[in-house]
Amino acid sequence: MNIGVLGTGIVGQTIGHRLIELGHKVMMGSRTADNRAGLVWAKAAGSSASFGVYGEAAKFGEMLFNCTSGTGSLSALEFAKAADLNNKVLIDVANPLDYSRGTPATLTVSNTDSLGEQIQRHHPLLKVVKALNTMNVDVMVHPERVRGAHDVFICGNDGVAKATVTKLLTEMGWESIIDLGDITNARGMEMALPLWISLQKKLGTNIFNFKIAK
Amino acid sequence: MNIGVLGTGIVGQTIGHRLIELGHKVMMGSRTADNRAGLVWAKAAGSSASFGVYGEAAKFGEMLFNCTSGTGSLSALEFAKAADLNNKVLIDVANPLDYSRGTPATLTVSNTDSLGEQIQRHHPLLKVVKALNTMNVDVMVHPERVRGAHDVFICGNDGVAKATVTKLLTEMGWESIIDLGDITNARGMEMALPLWISLQKKLGTNIFNFKIAK
Repeated sequence: MNIGVLGTGIVGQTIGHRLIELGHKVMMGSRTADNRAGLVWAKAAGSSASFGVYGEAAKFGEMLFNCTSGTGSLSALEFAKAADLNNKVLIDVANPLDYSRGTPATLTVSNTDSLGEQIQRHHPLLKVVKALNTMNVDVMVHPERVRGAHDVFICGNDGVAKATVTKLLTEMGWESIIDLGDITNARGMEMALPLWISLQKKLGTNIFNFKIAK
Repeated sequence: MNIGVLGTGIVGQTIGHRLIELGHKVMMGSRTADNRAGLVWAKAAGSSASFGVYGEAAKFGEMLFNCTSGTGSLSALEFAKAADLNNKVLIDVANPLDYSRGTPATLTVSNTDSLGEQIQRHHPLLKVVKALNTMNVDVMVHPERVRGAHDVFICGNDGVAKATVTKLLTEMGWESIIDLGDITNARGMEMALPLWISLQKKLGTNIFNFKIAK
């Protein structure tokens, strides 16, 4: 599948590499055409990788990944034309983390709203599926690095879109995918981040994840 | 140990019963001396149980449990004298849940502050330990009802207080207790509630809990 990955940070790069490894073609998108991280990544990632501005990556992708920083996600999507977003699935892995007030990080939106919902409201015909935001990127793309069973949560308003995302997550190695319901459940998924940050500090590693014991 | 349980709802009643079962003496506290739930509970719970107003329960307890609703916790503690709170351990199991705007519930404090921190700030000599707020009350007092390994988080500023709470949690059956650090970590613990609520709806049961897989 052709997949557009929005964002050139470590999350976008790691997910982009993994998607190529799984046989997909990836265009990474950035705000500017001369983004060094994006150009270097595309060169290193081989013939299935390319780089462009956000609008080009959105147009390229049959499916999109939002790997921009949460505070920049809405403005990044403004660079794409509605026609290049409408009816596509966007997997939103971003968290609206704000480090400007120091640590622990706070959320720029939470409690009565979420980044996932904001993106869905701004782009009503985009099929937003919140996923993979509750673990480190190394765990996102290689869940087998965490020992034992553990879970990835997804939510979104479109059942077919969630089935598509579930298939892709299964390709990535995810064995337990919990569909929490509509996109309002992104609140809980994003509000899990402060606990994740506390746990990271306590455990001294990024390689852990939530498991729901029943 | 003599333990004061503030709050006469299902959480206070269930924890009170369990503490008595474990050999402790419990005074349940309420705002008014004629609280029917408290009087009925104390009568049913036997000779180790008693009931009084918040100030009496605070005075009685060598250790206190805050089982009031999160929105009423600060005002409940105002009924106690400083001398009956100072240097005591208070286990804060409450969540600042607000259902007044319907479901999903929102938090009355979150992100940049937490109920645990608010209680600690209002009563600087009280040793607040946030604990047991991330699972249903039946799981709180009988963790063995959830199959497999799972975790309870605690946080607070006083190491001796956390050791005391850890001992009590162990008595209750908890095998994995994760100390997240100081009381600011109550933010993450309380912000886990929206995800818990989503999971409850999805799973159709209260009998589940978070496990940190590593």
